[in-house]
Parts: sequence; C-alpha cells; structure tokens
Amino acid sequence: MNSLYEQNIKKLEELSIKNGYYMSLGGLLGWDQWVGLPSNGVDYRSEVQGFITSQHFNMLTSKDAVKLIEYFDNNEIKDDIHKSIFSQLKRIQRMPTNLMEQLDKLTVQAQAAWHEAYKKSDFEIFKPYLEDIININKKIAEHSNCNGHLMNGLVEQYEMDLTVEEITEVFDELKVGIIKLIKQIQSSSVKINDIFENLEYEKNDLIDFAKHVVETMGYDSQSGAYGEVLHPYTSTIGPRDCRITANYSNFKNIYGTIHESGHAIYALNSSDKVAKLGLWGGLSGSLHESQALFYEYIIGKSIEFCSYFYPELQKRLPYFKDISLKEYYKSINIVQPYYKRIESDEVTYNLHPIIRFEIEKDIIEEKIKIDDIREVWNAKYKEYLGLDIKNDREGVLQDIHWALGAVGFFQSYTLGNVYGGQYLNTLLKDVPNVYKEIETGNFKPLNSWLKENIHQYGRVYTPTELLVKTTGEKLKAKHYLNYLNKKYSVIYNL
Amino acid sequence: MNSLYEQNIKKLEELSIKNGYYMSLGGLLGWDQWVGLPSNGVDYRSEVQGFITSQHFNMLTSKDAVKLIEYFDNNEIKDDIHKSIFSQLKRIQRMPTNLMEQLDKLTVQAQAAWHEAYKKSDFEIFKPYLEDIININKKIAEHSNCNGHLMNGLVEQYEMDLTVEEITEVFDELKVGIIKLIKQIQSSSVKINDIFENLEYEKNDLIDFAKHVVETMGYDSQSGAYGEVLHPYTSTIGPRDCRITANYSNFKNIYGTIHESGHAIYALNSSDKVAKLGLWGGLSGSLHESQALFYEYIIGKSIEFCSYFYPELQKRLPYFKDISLKEYYKSINIVQPYYKRIESDEVTYNLHPIIRFEIEKDIIEEKIKIDDIREVWNAKYKEYLGLDIKNDREGVLQDIHWALGAVGFFQSYTLGNVYGGQYLNTLLKDVPNVYKEIETGNFKPLNSWLKENIHQYGRVYTPTELLVKTTGEKLKAKHYLNYLNKKYSVIYNL
Repeated sequence: MNSLYEQNIKKLEELSIKNGYYMSLGGLLGWDQWVGLPSNGVDYRSEVQGFITSQHFNMLTSKDAVKLIEYFDNNEIKDDIHKSIFSQLKRIQRMPTNLMEQLDKLTVQAQAAWHEAYKKSDFEIFKPYLEDIININKKIAEHSNCNGHLMNGLVEQYEMDLTVEEITEVFDELKVGIIKLIKQIQSSSVKINDIFENLEYEKNDLIDFAKHVVETMGYDSQSGAYGEVLHPYTSTIGPRDCRITANYSNFKNIYGTIHESGHAIYALNSSDKVAKLGLWGGLSGSLHESQALFYEYIIGKSIEFCSYFYPELQKRLPYFKDISLKEYYKSINIVQPYYKRIESDEVTYNLHPIIRFEIEKDIIEEKIKIDDIREVWNAKYKEYLGLDIKNDREGVLQDIHWALGAVGFFQSYTLGNVYGGQYLNTLLKDVPNVYKEIETGNFKPLNSWLKENIHQYGRVYTPTELLVKTTGEKLKAKHYLNYLNKKYSVIYNL
Repeated sequence: MNSLYEQNIKKLEELSIKNGYYMSLGGLLGWDQWVGLPSNGVDYRSEVQGFITSQHFNMLTSKDAVKLIEYFDNNEIKDDIHKSIFSQLKRIQRMPTNLMEQLDKLTVQAQAAWHEAYKKSDFEIFKPYLEDIININKKIAEHSNCNGHLMNGLVEQYEMDLTVEEITEVFDELKVGIIKLIKQIQSSSVKINDIFENLEYEKNDLIDFAKHVVETMGYDSQSGAYGEVLHPYTSTIGPRDCRITANYSNFKNIYGTIHESGHAIYALNSSDKVAKLGLWGGLSGSLHESQALFYEYIIGKSIEFCSYFYPELQKRLPYFKDISLKEYYKSINIVQPYYKRIESDEVTYNLHPIIRFEIEKDIIEEKIKIDDIREVWNAKYKEYLGLDIKNDREGVLQDIHWALGAVGFFQSYTLGNVYGGQYLNTLLKDVPNVYKEIETGNFKPLNSWLKENIHQYGRVYTPTELLVKTTGEKLKAKHYLNYLNKKYSVIYNL
C-alpha cells in the first residue's frame, strides 16, 4: 500500500501528463490556424478553442487539484521534477482568470482599432483601447505578489524568476554599452555594401536551401514539418512534433527559418523522462527566445557558419556566384539603426525592447500617462538610436503586441540575447573548438552541449536555475556585451 | 422561471453543442494525421487521441447525462431537433464501451498481421486475428437489440434505421438486375477503347483542373482546403470547415476528388440553426456515401457533366486534344468486372459490397466458419462477377477494413448508390432541367435541391426519414436499377 505522499505524487504526475495533452491540442490548434483553417471556419474554431481552454483550466483548478496543491504546501517535495510540477500548477491556480478573460475580450476590439489606427497612422484612434488594456493589466499586476514594483506582477507571467530590478540593472548596463558600440561603428571608416538590394532568386531554391541549412543544423524533419505563412511561427505540438513556418518573400527571411528551427531544436530535445511527465517543449519567455536567437545570430551569422554554407548557397542561387564570402558575411552584419524592430540588425535590435520595457514600466507605475506615450517613445528613439520618428506608424503603432494585450512581455527579446551571450561564454570554455566544428558542418558538439545543459530539462527548471547551474552566475550583461564588442570590432575594424 | 422540461431541453442542447466541439477536434486530429503529423509524433499523438476520446465519452455518459436521458424517457420531446439529440445520445450511452475498447486494441495487432499476410498473399497469417475480431463483434452484436438477426446489432452502428432484412431484400433485387445487365453488356457488339492506357500529363495541371471542376460544382475553398495523400479522405472539422485530400498519381483519381468534394458539399450545407446546435456534418454511413457517389457517378460521369468540362480539359491536358467527347465519355464508363472493388466501374462495383455483406452476415450468424471464408469468397466472385480469384491478395485480403475492426459496415457503399438512384428519380421530377443546367455549368438547381431535401438537416433526421419525406417511399432497388439500365443501354447499345 502506498503512502498518502506517494499517492499524491502520482496524482500530480497524472495532472501534469494531462496538462501536456492540452498543451499539445493548443499547439495543434495554433498550427492549424496558420496553415490550414479556412476563413469561413474561423468563427466556429474560436468556439472550439474557448471550450478547450476552459476544459483545460477547469481541470487545473478543480477542487481535487486545489486540494493537491494544499497538501504539498504542507508536505515538502524533495525532488526537482515534482517540485517543478507543483510550483507551475500553483502559479496557474493563482491566476486572476476573470481579469484575463476580460483582457481577452477587450483585445478583439483593440486589434480592430489598432489596424484602423495603423492604416491612418493615427495613435489617437488606438489610444482609448490602449488605456483600457493598461488598466486591466494594472489590476492583473495588483493581483500578484509584486514586491515593490507593480510591473513585477506582469513580468512574472513571462519571466518566472527575474524581477524588474534585476532586468533594469542588466538593461542599464547593456544600454550604455550598446549605444557606445553604435557610435563607434558610426564613426568607423569601414563602410559595408548592402549586397541584398538587387538580389533576385527563385523562391523554391531559397526554400530548399533553407531546409538544407536547418536540417544540417539539427532540425529533424521526421519530428516536424514546414509551413509557409506571412508571419514566421513555431508550433510545439508534442515532445517529438514541432513544426515551423516561414516567409520567403525576402532572402534575409532565411534567418527567420533558422530562428524558428532554433525554437524547434530546443522544444524537441526534452529527455524521455521529462517528456513522459508532460514537461516537454521548453520554458516560455526569454529562455525560449534565447535559444532561437542563439541559432539565428550567434551561430547563424558567425563567419564559421557562413563559411560552411556559402559555397552551397553560391551553387544554388547564381546571384551570389561573384560575391565573396567576406562580402556576404559583412553584409548580413551591417549595423544601421532603423525604426522597425523586426527588421533591425543584431546590435541595434536590443534597444527596441529596452525602450518598450522602460515605457511599459513607467506607464504601469503611473510615472507617465497614456497621453505622453507618443512623445516619450519618439524621444527615446532619438536618444538611444539617433532616429527621428516621422509618424505613428513608424513609432508607437509599429506592431500589434499591445493590442494583443501583451504588457510586461517585451523584455524577453533582449533578455534572450543576454542569456545567449552568457551561455556562449561558458560554451566556449567547455567546447573550445565549437566554431571550428561548425565550419566543417558538424553541429553535434554545439547541439549536445545545449541539450546537456538546457534542452533536456524541458520545463523542469526555471531560466535562472539553469543559468546558474551551467554558467555559475546569475544573468549579467557583460558576457553579451563582450560578444558584441568582439564581433563588431573585427567587422568594423574598431 | 423556466419549467424543468425547458431546463432539461437547454441541458440537452449544451451537451449537443459540446459534442460538436469534440467532433471538430476529432476531425482536426484526423486531418492532421494525414497531412501534417511527422512520423516521430505518432506515439504521443495516440496518447492525446486516447485522452480526448475518453474525455468526450465521459461527458456523454456522465451521471448528469444519464439522468437527462432518463428524464426524457419519461417526458416525450415534441420537436424533431431535440428528439434527434436525445436519441443519438441514448444510442451512445447504450454502447458496449469495454468491448469496443477491446476491439480497438486488437486491431493494432490485426493490422500488422494483415500487412504481413497481404505481402505474402497468405490468408492463414491473418485468419486467427480475423477470428478474434469476429468473436468480439459477435459480443458487440449480442449487446444490442437485434430483432431476429444477430447481424442487426452490427449494422445499426452504421445504418441507424435499416434492418438486415430490408437490406437483404434490396440487395437481392439489385444483384439479379446487375448480373443481368453485366451479361447484356458482355454480349454487346459495342467494344469501348480504354483511352487512359497511354495517358501522360503534368501532375500540377491535373490538380488545377480538379480544383476547377469541384469549385465549379460547388465546393467552396473558403470553407475548406486541399491536401495530397495516398488515400483520398474528407475531414469535417466544423460546420463551415471541411477539407479534402486526393491522390493524383492516376488521371482517374480526379473522380476521387469529385467524390470527396461530394462528401464536403453535404457536410458544409447544414442550416445555421442545425449547425449551432452541434448537429452539423451530415449523417454517417450510407447517406454520406450516397452524396459522394452521387456527385462522382450520377453527376460526374454523366454526358452533360463531361460535355461542360471536356473542352476545358482538352485545353489544359494536351493529351486529350484529338480525342472526342464521346470517346472520353464512353471510356470513363467502360464496364469490366475486376477483382478489386476500389478500381471497379459504376456497375460491377455494387456487387463487391454485396458479396462482403453476405459473407459477414453468414459468419456472424455462424452459417459459415472462418475456415470457409476464402472458399466462399472465391465462389461468389465467380458466380456474381465471373472472376477467377488467383490468390488471397486479390481475394479475401484485398483491403484492410476487417483488420480495422469494421464488420457490418460494407453494405454502406452499395446502399449509397441505391439511395442516389432513388433521390435522382425524384430530383428529375422536381427539377426536370437539372442535367441541362449542368451542361451549361450551372450547378445551382442541383445543389439547392440537395440542400433543401437532405443537406440542410445535418444529423437531425435518419436516412429513412429523409428519404420518405422527399421520395415518398422507403429504400427500393428499382430506381437505381432503372438508372443503370437506361444509362448503359445507351452506352452499350443494348
């Protein structure tokens, strides 16, 4: 006969396994929405989606599930895996569902308003909806254990173990370093040609090449699929089923495919033990982003990576025949401040989420008002990036995230890069020849190290737990700054 | 304050609506299994599928759901829609779940055994598994209200309101008529050339042409999608989302696309009222098959249909440039007994399911033994079709249905044709110019009539209720026989 503790551990496992099944359905519904769902099917699909979400949530917050959490509040769990299931479940049970449903409903109108405002490049149209979104988010934040900063109550939805204070510290150091680097680059005598301006190619050749690249890199097509859609996207549908989509309207979108396959390699690499208990797929937020950005930038835009793949690219896309590897490498790494985050280079990119994070924090904590947002936005773009924002479409309306209700999320992108830099520092100590191997097309040393230190654990550990385990310290800006300075000093001869 | 009756009617509706959501998920999982699921994702998917199936079934057989059915057992429902929800739910609650789960598990091994047996063309390898499948099916049949024929307990899973006696009566008449027609055709002096033997074409041209045909016919691509897979298949995923797959390895497969889009036109045509209550998608079994076969044969292989589309086909596939419409029409209607059901012509096709139905009935009712099946099969193919079956692969092992556990299902195919013939007889009285309109590319009169009389009702009425409402009589073989005799008398100059 099992003890009560053992029985409850079993119940915890069952709940986590079923949670995995609902996540799998959510992944499939998401994937289908991008690649399959016909327009006339949308209305009914939203009913089905709502039903499944409520079934999922009802299961996780049922009387039995609440009792289970109460039991483990008073009976400490000794092992990491079950402790992790317990704390994830507890977080979900604490969520202010009513407020989140309110936010969900509001975003339907807010998205329509954003589209209208974007078309007319007029923030005033979107402003009242943004105000409501901010107000509900404030209430959601108040619901949490905020420890000083109200913004912590929002950030914790995405970063499970980083506080606003910690993020601010990292960002402040990063900001100074990056702005300095940009100024150095701008005064460099090196001027790089944009070889992509007149590029022509057959789309299918690009698609085939992109598949060749990511499969060499380690994306297993037996565990995934490729879709083609406007907005690149990764759908994690099961422990061994993670599908990516891409857009091939532009050559540089190949880096989008590399990015998504980075997400996929992470998501597909949970150990069997972890996968079996429903903890597959990887941690959400900045750690997932870090794995995608790592493959895209730190690996994908390195000279060694280019060196291995460029001859094949030249074979497949005749345009590149007379362009040297060096020209190609420099051109994909041109640094040039640009108003639009998603088309920015590796260096200036980081400032966009920092600006957004600062504005969000100040508005949630009532240091600025909705009416000030446009002015603050434009001033920060001038100060950090030296850009004059010409209109709302280039500025405060540039993407739809706020209209989707996402406040407290933006820092994930830049944090992802910072994680990447810190992991890279340790990777180069553990596997000094990692780039040399990539230059020969061998991604095994890289992938094994990432699996060993990060991927295998699925959703068991928090980002900070993993980071400290592997690198020996909490998140620091310096490693990523060192990486950027070193790489761009060579390119721009600083 | 609502009465208890009204409250329970409301509960019935809620259950039906949620049942629709689970059907939608089932449809999506099925579609994904054909067009998206990577091979490494199969194991986990079967866990997810099992979980969803059990959630679905648990909902329909919960204490509350059982109480609801008990209430309506004692309080008659007056309107057709709620009466239909009630009787469908009651049927599900009566199902012998344990036995069906046993059968499900058994079919995993049985399928593997069938593949092995098929490869070696040796029925002996598959026989012990077939024996187990038959035995469980007998138990399932015994669980039902069989009214004399044990086989009724299986047939009712697929035909909700036709008995073995009624089917046998229809089939006996049909068999005599069709065998007579085949003999007449075989002694006709008309010999038709098979123009498809040397056909060459670009696959994409065929795919585009197939889409052109089915969209002209009435399949709305805004409510669907096209997939390409080995086995043609229709996935009904919602009231306005029904997707088809096809195989274009052979020109004649275009009729497969027409067939699947016939299923889809039916499935997409439920009225809003019916769809809202979860009763969308159409009746399973022979009525659904009848709609697909109607578009494929009775419409799609008519001279008027060919006459409208053939010039376009000649434009797109140069092979047909020098072949006349008449040659094309005759060639797609060649009658020639063949051992394989799925590659048979419109006339001889019908005998295959009849043979299978007769064998299944006799084995379930213990008039023949498993050991006799091969001999009985080959004797019937000789008697009805004049064919000498050379080996098990051509004979008793020719398809996987039995290994999938499907016993009591095969009559649906031929019954589908018989329904089609009877509906055609009334259609021609109600809309005498229907074929003339098709000759001009106008499918509206046809589609409106089918929607009005069949499609709009979704799963509200049983096949016989619908048939009697529209044609004034129960299922009869004579109308379909008349149709066949008339059509093939012209083609073969009988």
